[in-house]
Amino acid sequence: MTYCVGLKLDRGLVFASDTRTNAGVDNIATFKKLHVWEEPGERVITLLSAGNLAVTQAVISLLSEHIAAADGDRATLMTAKTMFQVARLIGSAVREVEAIDGEALESNADNFFVTFILGGQIKGEEPRMFQVYAAGNFIEVGEDTPFLQIGEHKYGKPILDRVTRSDMRLGEAAKLVLLSFDSTLRSNLSVGMPIDMLLYNKDTFSTDRQVRIEQDDDYFQKLSHGWSDKLREAFADIEEFEV
Amino acid sequence: MTYCVGLKLDRGLVFASDTRTNAGVDNIATFKKLHVWEEPGERVITLLSAGNLAVTQAVISLLSEHIAAADGDRATLMTAKTMFQVARLIGSAVREVEAIDGEALESNADNFFVTFILGGQIKGEEPRMFQVYAAGNFIEVGEDTPFLQIGEHKYGKPILDRVTRSDMRLGEAAKLVLLSFDSTLRSNLSVGMPIDMLLYNKDTFSTDRQVRIEQDDDYFQKLSHGWSDKLREAFADIEEFEV
Repeated sequence: MTYCVGLKLDRGLVFASDTRTNAGVDNIATFKKLHVWEEPGERVITLLSAGNLAVTQAVISLLSEHIAAADGDRATLMTAKTMFQVARLIGSAVREVEAIDGEALESNADNFFVTFILGGQIKGEEPRMFQVYAAGNFIEVGEDTPFLQIGEHKYGKPILDRVTRSDMRLGEAAKLVLLSFDSTLRSNLSVGMPIDMLLYNKDTFSTDRQVRIEQDDDYFQKLSHGWSDKLREAFADIEEFEV
Repeated sequence: MTYCVGLKLDRGLVFASDTRTNAGVDNIATFKKLHVWEEPGERVITLLSAGNLAVTQAVISLLSEHIAAADGDRATLMTAKTMFQVARLIGSAVREVEAIDGEALESNADNFFVTFILGGQIKGEEPRMFQVYAAGNFIEVGEDTPFLQIGEHKYGKPILDRVTRSDMRLGEAAKLVLLSFDSTLRSNLSVGMPIDMLLYNKDTFSTDRQVRIEQDDDYFQKLSHGWSDKLREAFADIEEFEV
């Protein structure tokens, strides 16, 4: 599995993904699932991927090849005018890969399974965030629920449900996302460190704040232990059920 | 779906289940999933069920009919000498229902899906707890992980993973279980109030402390709001990620 989260906040966007891929529990590896395209000062596009690794890599490669082979006739991630058009390009790439590999995957009792969180900002627009499905269609994040999760999302959802607010600072949101990962990592082996995280400050059109958080990262260790202690304290503070 | 939890503690056993059944989101109903057989002073047997409601009801009915028709030749829940033997009786009942209904279910593109948490105490033994699978086989709870969950278990697992200890008081454990339900209820519509809970004090061979907790229950409301507040405070107390 995989766990990825995207937050769309008033101040910008936060993306995080784990890096574990597995084909059975005895065959795990580390792969990057956070992909970035940028033109400094003009556009920042980030894609988080979950699903069959061969499929997600094919989609990413196709998108990159289209950029390299751009002849002006076809829009690419670097020329599309809006994030909506970018989302459609991702959807088209997913459908292209499905047309090539879908049948063979299914005849091997495998699934064409893939989901993306797409977010970014193109000059002239506000930052936007989308979830793109295996069918190539997509939804956009609205105001009521400012986060998206893909992959192994259940363990880390309660904390997001309770704490997320659109007016959070990016550093606060990064803390929240890492706590959501901590809960998931504790309960599910198929999600693994390190965590790739990108904090995007609105209107900067720059991806300067991109970090990889390793298992022994000081902040993450402190966060993880501190949170466990605080949860146990909070638990102890609440009145017992009367027996 | 369903959510059920069982805890095996030094001081006794705690069982809890939601009461929602659904066939699609537009067809929900309330059904009891916590079943008790007891002979005061001698034995207490509790079964929590998840899965296809027709299947779980058939298993419960079979077990009850076997008790009613007992002729001394065949062990029943009321005569089995150990909880291990009780677990085998549950497994046999599951297999009997599978033999009758399994094929028809599968030809209707439905699944023979069922899981049970079985717990209790028979005089002469310590309290014991088991998870019985659709194949009729089962596992017993050991010392390292003193809880079992069936049904929609992911949302409510992080708090159990962090807080559960075998030496908890039953009232403390009840508080923990209700928090685990609170997280699940907030994030998943297929799990619904009221919650049925049974607290069993070791060596009492009595099920006196059996309660149904409704949506507007004072303790549950206080717990749910108090916990949200404390989580937000705990979150605010932790240092932000440096941006």
